[in-house]
Amino acid sequence: MRFASDNTSGAAPEVMAAILKANEGYESSYGADAGMQRVTDLIHDIFEAPEAAVYLVATGTAANALSIATHCPPWGGVFCHRHAHIAEDECNAPEFYSGAKLVLVPGDHGKMTPAGLGAALSTTGESGVHGVQRGMLSLTNVTEAGTVYTAAEIAALTAMAKAKGIPCHLDGSRFANALVATGATPAGMTWKAGIDVLSLGGTKNGCLGVEAVVLFNPEKAWEFELRRKRGGHLFSKHRFLSAQMEAYLTDGLWLRLAAQANAMGQRLARGLRERQAQVPEAAANMLFPEWSVGHHDRLEAAGAVYYRFPAPEGRERARLVASWSTTDADVDTFLNAF
Amino acid sequence: MRFASDNTSGAAPEVMAAILKANEGYESSYGADAGMQRVTDLIHDIFEAPEAAVYLVATGTAANALSIATHCPPWGGVFCHRHAHIAEDECNAPEFYSGAKLVLVPGDHGKMTPAGLGAALSTTGESGVHGVQRGMLSLTNVTEAGTVYTAAEIAALTAMAKAKGIPCHLDGSRFANALVATGATPAGMTWKAGIDVLSLGGTKNGCLGVEAVVLFNPEKAWEFELRRKRGGHLFSKHRFLSAQMEAYLTDGLWLRLAAQANAMGQRLARGLRERQAQVPEAAANMLFPEWSVGHHDRLEAAGAVYYRFPAPEGRERARLVASWSTTDADVDTFLNAF
Amino acid sequence: MRFASDNTSGAAPEVMAAILKANEGYESSYGADAGMQRVTDLIHDIFEAPEAAVYLVATGTAANALSIATHCPPWGGVFCHRHAHIAEDECNAPEFYSGAKLVLVPGDHGKMTPAGLGAALSTTGESGVHGVQRGMLSLTNVTEAGTVYTAAEIAALTAMAKAKGIPCHLDGSRFANALVATGATPAGMTWKAGIDVLSLGGTKNGCLGVEAVVLFNPEKAWEFELRRKRGGHLFSKHRFLSAQMEAYLTDGLWLRLAAQANAMGQRLARGLRERQAQVPEAAANMLFPEWSVGHHDRLEAAGAVYYRFPAPEGRERARLVASWSTTDADVDTFLNAF
Amino acid sequence: MRFASDNTSGAAPEVMAAILKANEGYESSYGADAGMQRVTDLIHDIFEAPEAAVYLVATGTAANALSIATHCPPWGGVFCHRHAHIAEDECNAPEFYSGAKLVLVPGDHGKMTPAGLGAALSTTGESGVHGVQRGMLSLTNVTEAGTVYTAAEIAALTAMAKAKGIPCHLDGSRFANALVATGATPAGMTWKAGIDVLSLGGTKNGCLGVEAVVLFNPEKAWEFELRRKRGGHLFSKHRFLSAQMEAYLTDGLWLRLAAQANAMGQRLARGLRERQAQVPEAAANMLFPEWSVGHHDRLEAAGAVYYRFPAPEGRERARLVASWSTTDADVDTFLNAF
Repeated sequence: MRFASDNTSGAAPEVMAAILKANEGYESSYGADAGMQRVTDLIHDIFEAPEAAVYLVATGTAANALSIATHCPPWGGVFCHRHAHIAEDECNAPEFYSGAKLVLVPGDHGKMTPAGLGAALSTTGESGVHGVQRGMLSLTNVTEAGTVYTAAEIAALTAMAKAKGIPCHLDGSRFANALVATGATPAGMTWKAGIDVLSLGGTKNGCLGVEAVVLFNPEKAWEFELRRKRGGHLFSKHRFLSAQMEAYLTDGLWLRLAAQANAMGQRLARGLRERQAQVPEAAANMLFPEWSVGHHDRLEAAGAVYYRFPAPEGRERARLVASWSTTDADVDTFLNAF
Repeated sequence: MRFASDNTSGAAPEVMAAILKANEGYESSYGADAGMQRVTDLIHDIFEAPEAAVYLVATGTAANALSIATHCPPWGGVFCHRHAHIAEDECNAPEFYSGAKLVLVPGDHGKMTPAGLGAALSTTGESGVHGVQRGMLSLTNVTEAGTVYTAAEIAALTAMAKAKGIPCHLDGSRFANALVATGATPAGMTWKAGIDVLSLGGTKNGCLGVEAVVLFNPEKAWEFELRRKRGGHLFSKHRFLSAQMEAYLTDGLWLRLAAQANAMGQRLARGLRERQAQVPEAAANMLFPEWSVGHHDRLEAAGAVYYRFPAPEGRERARLVASWSTTDADVDTFLNAF
Repeated sequence: MRFASDNTSGAAPEVMAAILKANEGYESSYGADAGMQRVTDLIHDIFEAPEAAVYLVATGTAANALSIATHCPPWGGVFCHRHAHIAEDECNAPEFYSGAKLVLVPGDHGKMTPAGLGAALSTTGESGVHGVQRGMLSLTNVTEAGTVYTAAEIAALTAMAKAKGIPCHLDGSRFANALVATGATPAGMTWKAGIDVLSLGGTKNGCLGVEAVVLFNPEKAWEFELRRKRGGHLFSKHRFLSAQMEAYLTDGLWLRLAAQANAMGQRLARGLRERQAQVPEAAANMLFPEWSVGHHDRLEAAGAVYYRFPAPEGRERARLVASWSTTDADVDTFLNAF
Repeated sequence: MRFASDNTSGAAPEVMAAILKANEGYESSYGADAGMQRVTDLIHDIFEAPEAAVYLVATGTAANALSIATHCPPWGGVFCHRHAHIAEDECNAPEFYSGAKLVLVPGDHGKMTPAGLGAALSTTGESGVHGVQRGMLSLTNVTEAGTVYTAAEIAALTAMAKAKGIPCHLDGSRFANALVATGATPAGMTWKAGIDVLSLGGTKNGCLGVEAVVLFNPEKAWEFELRRKRGGHLFSKHRFLSAQMEAYLTDGLWLRLAAQANAMGQRLARGLRERQAQVPEAAANMLFPEWSVGHHDRLEAAGAVYYRFPAPEGRERARLVASWSTTDADVDTFLNAF
């Protein structure tokens, strides 16, 4: 009954096997390993983007902060949802790396709307040097609220950003889950939908610690490399990052793992709804149902592990996250305890 | 004949086994894993420092930059050897994290002398707000030139820094090699010798990617935690950092690995000297011998892999690094080719 | 009919005379001039704060950014009104100098309420290292909307901040106008009301370009001096900053100038209300009345100069600012044109 | 006998008169004043550079730091003389604004040589992402040692920088003195000699506090404006900066003032040499003669004011600086006391 986060799961067996295999012999360091070339080829192929520049780092915060710093000047504003991970959960890392400012866009269920983004875009950067300039757009998919943007929704938002001349980032720490939930293709949800740079998550979905940054426009590739090194995020034994990502992307493993996580998230949602719990929209592997404090306490006493947040009227909201390693039995045990 | 760097080696079997074992089941994330407590206990014990705050990151640059940022204000100067890794090989990461400036101290064979440090200390911070202030001292052991400081030499230098009221950092990316080379104890080479904060390397000496930062004075522990997160260096699946460091420090594995690396470095030095090569002082696993360009070319053609640097009179300097995985046979093959 | 800003006025004759007088002979540079000691004595006296550290810079943005950087760590959040000058009009200078993040607090008419601040304080800094930490409070008086906080209102807000252990800044670019509008004493509106550091404006109210920073707790004085120099804000011919501030604070000049500006602002507000214009609360020298676009155009054609902002229903909001140099005749000409 | 610095002088009468005149009436703020257009026209004309972008700030440190930040990326190295003002006297402001690192180039008498620069250029930026990259060149004229570069010497150094693809800055806090000393034209010493951006000093040579930044290639003009605002260096009552610079550049005032300062510096040097003092090369208004500590003490007792620096063998080096306001009588009084 461990539903605290998908990062409390371990790594998938295929990824572990790749790590073991990568350990054989000597290998060039700092990204010059043969495995990295294979990762790049895989991403070129999967994303139908043969020109993209691809880099690996070990944390999602690094992937996001470096992506933003490479695309937004220090006097720019990064338009993001008010509850975005970059706004609430990265201890100002994006600002540290970029010098930029986050411009918070409202929106229900973790999603910004065209109207919300439009308002932010039109009131920012209109006072000469005095105010923050329009810098870039950063979307998150799966969102922090467990909802998803369709590729069309992303395209609609990026079009508004592009009309103002600013680039677009997608925080895809749960990108595979978003693909599975929407049926979009990797290209369809990214560069075909106006995304310039993607944080492609591996850690939460079956790796030990690896995220790719995909620069669909490789113009800033060298700058990215320098920023990665300057941030201390270039691994000497880089082969161990490459090995994870290669295994993850090979033969659709990443999508199979995400499909399992999503299926378990949906099974949980269905089960809770059948039990009369109030479960807001949840498209992937993460849900935020709400019930009484007393009921929370009983579940914890029964061994359930998850995050609890204050809610009105003596209730609390749960954050329940399924992962690639969550089983039917795990879900059913929880539902029975419920 | 792979002598380019100790980071072209893989991970030791014990470390790999620990990674596999750590993968079982669910585990708390972001440093709250049980393994991290065991790492802290091990370091407390090994360093005779039960109050020390201990943190893990994945790269040496991160360990150094965060250690410096936590101890040196943005207007401070970090006294370091002019060829220190933080000065030459980290793409300004220490400056990026701290805002501070590096004050380069000269010295032969990668070591600063008391006279050199004294001159730098006395000419810095003497012009009010106009110049950089005295900030901290950063030493490296094993040095970038392959030499070592004895514990007494470190104590002499830190005493000079302390007399000016500034804290002292030790970049120990090859700390185990320095211990083996000098016979010093972990405590003897660090806090007993005036070191306040240590970057304790694991990556180069048999891990996949892990470095500990040991704050002997834990006053700045919380600040370090915030800086680590803000730099994107806090791992979600932190258990995999803990597992490496735990295995590394258990039952003296780290010292055995370093002893092998050093022994191979010394075997190489001995063999080269017997063959009339000019080999400067080399106390651990890294040496910088010099010979003609033509001889370098022949060695490369024979399959030897290492770095070459320009030297006067048509010669070049080699950087040869042995690692925990270097064998007698590896060395002898090289010597035979030589 | 120049009502665009109080910074389109020149300097008061007394201030100009002081500049001329300060130009005689040689004088020590970088803040060691005799005039600076007199400024410090004046501020100690006027603010009943004999321990305060006092510094001069030339712009309000510098005063604010340095005040914030000296009191808020890079991982801290600065609680400020969502329309604060530091949030909207300083091109990220506070973030640049401090590394901190602004946490925007809502509130009508440019003022944050205890409820609004309370909500922000309670939802910030509650997620360990992941989110921004509580850093400091920054209030503005006169506010950007032309309203004022009473000393008691300030004290209520700072008490909430102090209860969370964070320091409090007052952006007083129009501090004299706020004193005149509320009748508070300088001490009463600052340290007696919980303010730790004050940006004391001179430029807008009759100087050429000078702002004082008053650190009521001088513990961070040396850090402030270093940050000022590092920001390029320490004047070599500092005597010319001192001369302005000395004249400004001597014999109550600053309050007389502010009284004139406020009187003219109020005369304008009264006149507009008599002419059926909608004029929101305006306590000092700045008002934001609203009328039709056509009427704006007619006023501009008649020679009126001021800023216009979009408003609903085909209307626009004016920003009208009176200054120390605004006369009855200036106001009446505008009202007649109206 | 005030020879401590040219910044202990006041402002020239013409500059003061301009300040008074600029105070009349209302004027647009933040650089939109009519005077700024006249300043730009003057600089276009004087520098034969009709396309240059021109900005004003109040301190030399701001001019330098902003010039560097606009032209050097955070991972770049700024090649400068080891005793450059930006290296020794600005409390890391250039690093703060740019994120870059200073690469110190040796050279006698404050001047870098082609050989010294060549060595620095060839050993920097040759290790991929690991080391600092080649960023820009920054020269100072008059140098910190009181010597000057001829236009041809500048051209030789900038050619080496350009060959590596990096831009060139000239710190001209005493630019007028350098022109007078060498007979070069403003264009000849700047863009015709390969300079891309100039800090053009006014403060030390008869202004209250104003420096121009001249971007001969205006491509980065908007970035400069944003950086200036973000640094808190955009004046609201900008007319007072414009007035100083306009008066300074009108009818050759700046060159007349510098000619007087230089003449007094040379008179002092001549007089000291006649009195057997050891006076190193001194081409403009600043000299660094050396004599015994006892003799220094006697001069101070007689009322002479200047800086003293340690020198070998019980001697001390003086820094004597003449300014636009130094008179023959001032010099002769000093020489008589000597």
